[in-house]
Amino acid sequence: MAKTMAINAGSSSLKFQLFEMPAETVIAKGQVERIGMSDAIFTLKFNGEKTELVQDIADHEAAINLLLEQLKAHEVIKDLTEITGVGHRIVAGGEWFNKSVIVDDEALNKIERLADYAPLHNTSEALGIRVFQKLLPNALSVAVFDTAFHQTMPKKNYLYALPYEYYTKYGARKYGAHGTSHMYVAQRTADLLGKKLEDLKLITLHLGAGASVTAIKDGKSYDTSMGFSPLAGVMMATRTGDVDPSLVYYIQNREGLSNDEMLDVLNKKSGLLGVSTISSDMRDLESVADTNDHAALALEMFIDRVVRYIGQYYVELGGVDALTFTAGIGENAANVREEIINRLAFMGIKIDAEKNELRDDEVILSTDDSTAAVLKVATNEELMIARDIQALQAQNK
Amino acid sequence: MAKTMAINAGSSSLKFQLFEMPAETVIAKGQVERIGMSDAIFTLKFNGEKTELVQDIADHEAAINLLLEQLKAHEVIKDLTEITGVGHRIVAGGEWFNKSVIVDDEALNKIERLADYAPLHNTSEALGIRVFQKLLPNALSVAVFDTAFHQTMPKKNYLYALPYEYYTKYGARKYGAHGTSHMYVAQRTADLLGKKLEDLKLITLHLGAGASVTAIKDGKSYDTSMGFSPLAGVMMATRTGDVDPSLVYYIQNREGLSNDEMLDVLNKKSGLLGVSTISSDMRDLESVADTNDHAALALEMFIDRVVRYIGQYYVELGGVDALTFTAGIGENAANVREEIINRLAFMGIKIDAEKNELRDDEVILSTDDSTAAVLKVATNEELMIARDIQALQAQNK
Repeated sequence: MAKTMAINAGSSSLKFQLFEMPAETVIAKGQVERIGMSDAIFTLKFNGEKTELVQDIADHEAAINLLLEQLKAHEVIKDLTEITGVGHRIVAGGEWFNKSVIVDDEALNKIERLADYAPLHNTSEALGIRVFQKLLPNALSVAVFDTAFHQTMPKKNYLYALPYEYYTKYGARKYGAHGTSHMYVAQRTADLLGKKLEDLKLITLHLGAGASVTAIKDGKSYDTSMGFSPLAGVMMATRTGDVDPSLVYYIQNREGLSNDEMLDVLNKKSGLLGVSTISSDMRDLESVADTNDHAALALEMFIDRVVRYIGQYYVELGGVDALTFTAGIGENAANVREEIINRLAFMGIKIDAEKNELRDDEVILSTDDSTAAVLKVATNEELMIARDIQALQAQNK
Repeated sequence: MAKTMAINAGSSSLKFQLFEMPAETVIAKGQVERIGMSDAIFTLKFNGEKTELVQDIADHEAAINLLLEQLKAHEVIKDLTEITGVGHRIVAGGEWFNKSVIVDDEALNKIERLADYAPLHNTSEALGIRVFQKLLPNALSVAVFDTAFHQTMPKKNYLYALPYEYYTKYGARKYGAHGTSHMYVAQRTADLLGKKLEDLKLITLHLGAGASVTAIKDGKSYDTSMGFSPLAGVMMATRTGDVDPSLVYYIQNREGLSNDEMLDVLNKKSGLLGVSTISSDMRDLESVADTNDHAALALEMFIDRVVRYIGQYYVELGGVDALTFTAGIGENAANVREEIINRLAFMGIKIDAEKNELRDDEVILSTDDSTAAVLKVATNEELMIARDIQALQAQNK
């Protein structure tokens, strides 16, 4: 069986999962954090054991060298040639990529040029690709784009009401994100309901530190809450989501901030953290909401902003057959799920309180008489990457 | 009977209507345009006749002096003392004003300080108040705020997911606009349906060059699509409505624009004009949409953005009893109404095609079996101002 690796590279971190395919078994996984620091941390989980090393890791090449050495040292692999494919999660695929691709020079060049849209992300991701191509020259190099699934949106949904020339000159439009996750849970939803994905009107709710809601019709992304960037849409852990741009400029002027400083506020100091003033973590807020008005307000607003998008997509889709929760909050915060669905009770959408408490990865939560199915599905973007590697390997033969 | 005047002052224009109260009769109306220019235009409509003067009008005081002279010259009034009250439309009332007030020094000072939120509008409006107070010292001076009706919104709806301190320090929140219009058509909707306003869940659609959608519950504004400023919400004639702030900064950088220049693009070069590239006027776009893809796309997007807010408010309100169209597009564009309501057909909301073509000011458009009433109601913000003057005169006795 082939071993393939799913990689998610950030500016100072790199997460990996090693799969055995086509069995879809995770053999090993881990991460490198604080790349570039003298006290960087390498973590490997293999055979039920966890290894942690703290040491100087100068750059991404050093991190990936260490990772490959450790895989051999722990006998996860005997030889680097066992790894036949490496798939990289890429945040921005623009209009150039509507599906996963084998990374040749032209594709890598495009990924680097798309750093315009996601400066921190695409640059690190392209770097990860280059290093793996150097160290594992025989492994197929694959790019999987966060935006690809959303490339099916109709123009009326992806265009902003801005001067049209900005779209043609700069690609100013909605791209969305979390596409791999939305696609994965949509397919699982269809499987669990015993239906064809193409026959369902779905609203998928990826609620984590980053959060987005997607409307899916005919098996394709029809609309999504994130926009040109992952800042837009619902309220998030530290991101504001939708906000009046006039207010952004107004605050910037009053505070004397530069554009970049203001963007930093919108991305890193807003959302649950900004409103609650105490934490960006839903669990922290839930634990004090009874006695802390700010925490309670942040929770109430988070639920409300998700509900707004459900309403919007209910009408955009012309109805809804199923709603599926996923990601950190969506999978684990039973109260949040319950409060969101309670707001839809007037439409006949209901969940079973006992099923909602189950810890399983995949649960149909709705009652038998609910007018739409409600599910929670643990997302698995890494598995999607492994599958795309396998599919492209098969095509490439 | 008392004569009162409703005033809507802009930076270079001033509109007026003279009412006889309590009969609610419009005796005369008109406007001054191009104030500050040598070829300013004064228009008066009285007794079925229209007078137009083109002359040098140096400033607001000159404009208002001319207006009062002309009212006497045409014998609309014999003496200035006949005008017992002047009501001024004010765009920004902040959190200080949740209803119309008599303008004393303190109120005028607050209106001027609120120019922070609406620099062009409040400054001109305050100037109009000062001039009328000087020229008609015995008339009651009243301010009617565009934001007042929306002051009932719950905090979860008016707050943005920004650092909370911006709300306490700068009043960074949603204020909305068109409040007088939404309130007026909501009350007319209840009257026309023979129901109490307090018992209805309403979505009022003020669709003009500026456009906003409001959710009304228990007779009060519950949420509205405009935000801190009138830039946010649905797509408008030249305003973009909702847009990802990251994209705003991205375009600004690429185009080399200052913050003010970019705000100008968002306010004056976007919306229907920006997408269509040919016109900000719905009628122009409808006339060429069959052969012009840009015009067709702009129309499609406009309808879509309104439908999104209907979906959002449907769920926020937990259902809807009636939807009411008003303002230039809402009252006159039968096709736009039809296309919006067609998108709601799956919810059982339907209009009668013949009724939709009626030119009357107030029509119940929905079919008998529609699950929600649909109406068009000609708005009348000036009448609301006249009524508020009368009410405050009664209190002031």
